Amino acid sequence: MHHPDLDAIRTAAARIAPHAHVTPVLRSGSLDRLAGCELFFKSEHLQRIGAFKFRGACNAVMSLDDATAARGVVTQSSGNHGAAIALACRIRGIPATVVVPHSAARIKLAAIRDFGARVVPCEVAQADRTRVTARVLAEQGGELIHPFDDARVIAGQATATLELLQHTPDLDVLVAPVSGGGLLSGTALAGKALRPQIEIVGAEPEGARDAHDSLAQRRLIVDQPADTICDGLRAHLSERTFDIISRHVAAIELASEAQIVAAMRLLWERLKQAVEPSAAVALAAILRAPERFRGRRVGVILSGGNVDLDRLPW
Amino acid sequence: MHHPDLDAIRTAAARIAPHAHVTPVLRSGSLDRLAGCELFFKSEHLQRIGAFKFRGACNAVMSLDDATAARGVVTQSSGNHGAAIALACRIRGIPATVVVPHSAARIKLAAIRDFGARVVPCEVAQADRTRVTARVLAEQGGELIHPFDDARVIAGQATATLELLQHTPDLDVLVAPVSGGGLLSGTALAGKALRPQIEIVGAEPEGARDAHDSLAQRRLIVDQPADTICDGLRAHLSERTFDIISRHVAAIELASEAQIVAAMRLLWERLKQAVEPSAAVALAAILRAPERFRGRRVGVILSGGNVDLDRLPW
Repeated sequence: MHHPDLDAIRTAAARIAPHAHVTPVLRSGSLDRLAGCELFFKSEHLQRIGAFKFRGACNAVMSLDDATAARGVVTQSSGNHGAAIALACRIRGIPATVVVPHSAARIKLAAIRDFGARVVPCEVAQADRTRVTARVLAEQGGELIHPFDDARVIAGQATATLELLQHTPDLDVLVAPVSGGGLLSGTALAGKALRPQIEIVGAEPEGARDAHDSLAQRRLIVDQPADTICDGLRAHLSERTFDIISRHVAAIELASEAQIVAAMRLLWERLKQAVEPSAAVALAAILRAPERFRGRRVGVILSGGNVDLDRLPW
Repeated sequence: MHHPDLDAIRTAAARIAPHAHVTPVLRSGSLDRLAGCELFFKSEHLQRIGAFKFRGACNAVMSLDDATAARGVVTQSSGNHGAAIALACRIRGIPATVVVPHSAARIKLAAIRDFGARVVPCEVAQADRTRVTARVLAEQGGELIHPFDDARVIAGQATATLELLQHTPDLDVLVAPVSGGGLLSGTALAGKALRPQIEIVGAEPEGARDAHDSLAQRRLIVDQPADTICDGLRAHLSERTFDIISRHVAAIELASEAQIVAAMRLLWERLKQAVEPSAAVALAAILRAPERFRGRRVGVILSGGNVDLDRLPW
């Protein structure tokens, strides 16, 4: 399988540059002391639509030829990718359809609608998402842009790490949440291409540990039910992302629900950043496995900040 | 009265540089559209101790001669200035005593203690704060560093605007919250010195509108009771800050409690920044008086982010 190389990632960066934000890298002395390492938070919750997902969606939508683009884009998403596709299509002036499971966070569903996409509801199970997406494609046509099983999307997500390593070149480790593996794959490809000695670590909720178990058992597990507060981390890997992660990722560290909520609260109180639970899993994993990170310079992808302020988990 | 000039502000910036953060300037397309102007948020909630107050306190503490410093520092504060003095004194290795009213936010009181300062409680009324502070000074000696009625403190607060205008030189307006007036005075002195045509606007809760009324009546009002969620905005001006503000500030715009809470929520949801109510009053005032700001480039000082996540106002 052909994975995006550094050229593809740099092309993606140039393609999205007119539309995406260069997000800041934030630091906190008190979190550094707590974690026993130097933390550099790449703040993708400050990206457009409030999540890194805009990078991959924008790269994919902007790389379509005009004839393909005119037929519109179809995707499935539990939230942030859907909003990202909706915004990228609005910028390009083409129609977007997003298949969204009933379990999606209210605030993310509202964003998809606000950006003018058509929303098609489906059940939570991956099989139903796939079935409904296939039906929509059969009925209306259009280009499928999968939330993570897509080289254009992975190249886009990789641009966050490109920026992070331009800002702070001498990192020892990169930590990113893993769900379908698009962000972690992009992080790994960009990180290893720019700095071969860097260590790549995934962070995953215990309640959705399919990537962890897939890596441990060296086979792709797609039938584990997910049960976690992290509404962005309930997907499982694809063959493509499993292949990238198997090659480049040193470990996937787990965190419990209580550890994720505690880390989220720390990020709000100490870093003053309103991040969503799916973003907090990275810090939770670092605090749970301090020996891996002690004394090192650690880049952390804060993946998103779309959280319902009326339903905070504390 | 002698007020800090540009030289004094630049000296303060150099003095605090080894200790203070250069805070980022954050932007949000959706807030720009909502406000009808271009907003540049100088993010002082990301300053050390989570508030701009560290600038003034650090400048004052670091400018003491060794003999004076050795006798320690005494101050009165409802919170952030107390934590700032405590941290600055810890860095310098000298004792700090902070007189704190019972009404102080729990999280701010904890920070003062965590930084190793002695806490002396007092009643909420300004007269009692002053009385207890005078008693502490009489008993133990030490240097009084007032939270705002102090040229060293004002010069320190002014460094936030120095950085903001270095980052974004072509602003039309600067908006800062006003309580005792240290931040607004510093903002005005730096803003007018660097860019004489800039307009300076204060933002104040309706429930603590003494600065607004002082400006309107051209006399210093110190006997209005304050009733607002903004625990950092309950002080009144001093002769010194009233003089600076009378010379340089175009207007003080008011905001209701509901408008402040709504603006705080917008800053959390759209800018993803966990700011305290006292910081949100600036955006609330902008949204309440859109005609003043329409189409202009507006610098906004987000003054602090110390908020109790268990007591959010929505």
